[in-house]
Amino acid sequence: MNKNIIKPSTLPGFMELLPREQILFNKMLDIIRKNYEKFGFLPIDTPVIEKSEILLAKGGGETEQQIYRFEKGDTDLALRFDLTVPLARYVAEHFSELTFPFRRYQIGKVYRGERAQRGRFREFYQCDIDIIGNGKLDIINDAEIPSIIYSTFKDLGFDFFTIKVNNRKVLKGFFQHLDIEDSTEVLRTIDKLEKIGLRKVEKELEDQGLEKDKIIEILEFIQIEGSNEEKLQRLKNLNINNEIFIEGLKELEAVNEYISIFGVPKENYMIDLTIARGLDYYTGTVYETFLDDYPSLGSICSGGRYDNLAEYYTKQSLPGVGISIGLTRLFYQLNEVNLINVGEDSLTKVVIIPMKDCIDKAIQVANKLRQGEINTQIYLEQGKIGKKFGYVDKLNIPYSMVIGPDEIEKNQFTLRNMESGKQELFTMDELLKILK
Amino acid sequence: MNKNIIKPSTLPGFMELLPREQILFNKMLDIIRKNYEKFGFLPIDTPVIEKSEILLAKGGGETEQQIYRFEKGDTDLALRFDLTVPLARYVAEHFSELTFPFRRYQIGKVYRGERAQRGRFREFYQCDIDIIGNGKLDIINDAEIPSIIYSTFKDLGFDFFTIKVNNRKVLKGFFQHLDIEDSTEVLRTIDKLEKIGLRKVEKELEDQGLEKDKIIEILEFIQIEGSNEEKLQRLKNLNINNEIFIEGLKELEAVNEYISIFGVPKENYMIDLTIARGLDYYTGTVYETFLDDYPSLGSICSGGRYDNLAEYYTKQSLPGVGISIGLTRLFYQLNEVNLINVGEDSLTKVVIIPMKDCIDKAIQVANKLRQGEINTQIYLEQGKIGKKFGYVDKLNIPYSMVIGPDEIEKNQFTLRNMESGKQELFTMDELLKILK
Repeated sequence: MNKNIIKPSTLPGFMELLPREQILFNKMLDIIRKNYEKFGFLPIDTPVIEKSEILLAKGGGETEQQIYRFEKGDTDLALRFDLTVPLARYVAEHFSELTFPFRRYQIGKVYRGERAQRGRFREFYQCDIDIIGNGKLDIINDAEIPSIIYSTFKDLGFDFFTIKVNNRKVLKGFFQHLDIEDSTEVLRTIDKLEKIGLRKVEKELEDQGLEKDKIIEILEFIQIEGSNEEKLQRLKNLNINNEIFIEGLKELEAVNEYISIFGVPKENYMIDLTIARGLDYYTGTVYETFLDDYPSLGSICSGGRYDNLAEYYTKQSLPGVGISIGLTRLFYQLNEVNLINVGEDSLTKVVIIPMKDCIDKAIQVANKLRQGEINTQIYLEQGKIGKKFGYVDKLNIPYSMVIGPDEIEKNQFTLRNMESGKQELFTMDELLKILK
Repeated sequence: MNKNIIKPSTLPGFMELLPREQILFNKMLDIIRKNYEKFGFLPIDTPVIEKSEILLAKGGGETEQQIYRFEKGDTDLALRFDLTVPLARYVAEHFSELTFPFRRYQIGKVYRGERAQRGRFREFYQCDIDIIGNGKLDIINDAEIPSIIYSTFKDLGFDFFTIKVNNRKVLKGFFQHLDIEDSTEVLRTIDKLEKIGLRKVEKELEDQGLEKDKIIEILEFIQIEGSNEEKLQRLKNLNINNEIFIEGLKELEAVNEYISIFGVPKENYMIDLTIARGLDYYTGTVYETFLDDYPSLGSICSGGRYDNLAEYYTKQSLPGVGISIGLTRLFYQLNEVNLINVGEDSLTKVVIIPMKDCIDKAIQVANKLRQGEINTQIYLEQGKIGKKFGYVDKLNIPYSMVIGPDEIEKNQFTLRNMESGKQELFTMDELLKILK
């Protein structure tokens, strides 16, 4: 190898796709965006680089280790690690120019210098929506969110998925009632129920030094079964006289009632009392979404209600509710199990192949097709016809059209279906209809 | 101010828009993307972070000063400063998996730590297309590019703009013929003709120590006037017997001939012999695009032909031709002179305002509208009706619809045009048609 040649490669943990895959990825992005817009969310686009003091205002733990942080001049900079902190900064900064409730979506790349491992990415797309209230935000917003998840994943080609809903206040009130002051550890354990099973949960709770009778109550609580309505009834039957518990239960009832009015079918959502999520962030409703046939993929869309979005940047009280889809990881996972289901992997509809001295006509035809919003390429290189068909074929472009003296004379065009090999003669008007 | 509150602000040189502006920005992005796809370009999306050795392979000058470079672990990283270097790395890395000619588009953010000044950005979008040949690439590709520029800027709402075309070989051959070995300085001076005028160009050439007779020939050359065909004829009449000049002239003639076949109107392009562009990168055809009424904005879309895309990463010979639109700067400039012309600044078509106890019906109606692909918001908060209309108004959403007991009884809906204030009663089928 020439010593001046640098081996071309990307960094580990950075996804890069071939065009064919990129087309499918972008289609998924577009579907998500279209759904967010359908529900009245407005786009924002914040810088990838922010001041470190902004991004690390909350600080702590993994964030500080994983963040990409550096100096330029004498400014301490960092790359955003999610879209929530930038949203908080954005709403605080532009507060007086925004209209509340502020429904925003943002789709963009975020950065986390995680340990590299299969299926984990250091650069990945997040697709977020949030509804931010000024001072207050009606609980019915929490019921609308699952309908957006439903609509989005249906459009992404999925039928069998379940949106799991819970309310952190129900959990918090329940633990207060048990006199467990710091429920962090208990919640972390409960959250693992699906993964580790009931026996191990019990064991872990014992190891945490919890009294036997409390453990029994906890295990009973997380095993509450039945339809959503039965679960709610059983929660009521616990007769727990704790204010937060009662408030959470009321919220969960309201959310459950309205989710179905919002059009989410019964089989696509359920109350799951073991869902806790981000332990110190969410304060009310929480969501996770699972593919019924692929639970091992984990939650593919999660989120919840929080009391105060931007406490580090403003004194305004800004409650909100939102969700996030981590598309890079999701795409990777779906691709692994062959579940990408959003149509063709070609954007180009037809390649026009001009014969010798017929380029003028080829360009005219291409211009007409493009005016008709049909993505059209002209094959502009010299070469053998077989090579040209090979090109169309390799790119999975559905149609080709050779233009020669015959076509020019008749002003009719032979469209070749690349899959079937079938050829048919059409007028321009017919072409425009067929290719549309 | 609470001492724990961090002032929310973005870094200087980083554009951040309010949703209303963001909607317009995104519409422009979409139009550009749609046009690129219409001409058969395929999307790629490369990482924002790459190895420094990759991004700095060519190195030199401004790039090294401006690049955002940092270490994470013991890896030397940097943020991409354009989309061309990543494209070169991409094509070299994935060479065997790509189909040539490789027509790719990429739209993404790039980073340059420039000195902060008005209208200059450290983070900005580039919207690039390139056509890469494997070993060779027909000159007719160079003629197609202006038709893509034309189609794109027409769709962006512009009528009066000029795509200026030149060929670096014509310049190079001309200077060889004059025995000027290093034409870099001369080219730099000529490139300023528009800005500084003929007299100052002459003065600068004198200061460079050029002989009088050469200066006269140069000034004659750059003053060649007339129609494109006349300019080409006058270039021929110079009877310059230099191989490179003759080749360049032949290319320029071919490009000129085909541009109009590709459908670009005469008034939207011209040969301009003073356009040189990126002095060491382009090797043939070069383009710049100017708004006729706003020449001071500078070129809004530029590019050209290069002999070898990826010499630092592969021995493959990869000639190409491409253009770039720097959308962040363009948007800023157009906004300053009120030239953003891509439609409404609301994505949401209608806000449904439910009266007390009518939320169920409101949700049903919203579901139907959304199924009909109409972006619909339900106003879910409690409050006075005036405040709710104020919300719709502030967001420039064109329609609102109050749903109360009357609407439920009649199953008809009063649509309010927010601009005219006019209200009309419609059935659901009528609504779907009107709002579409």
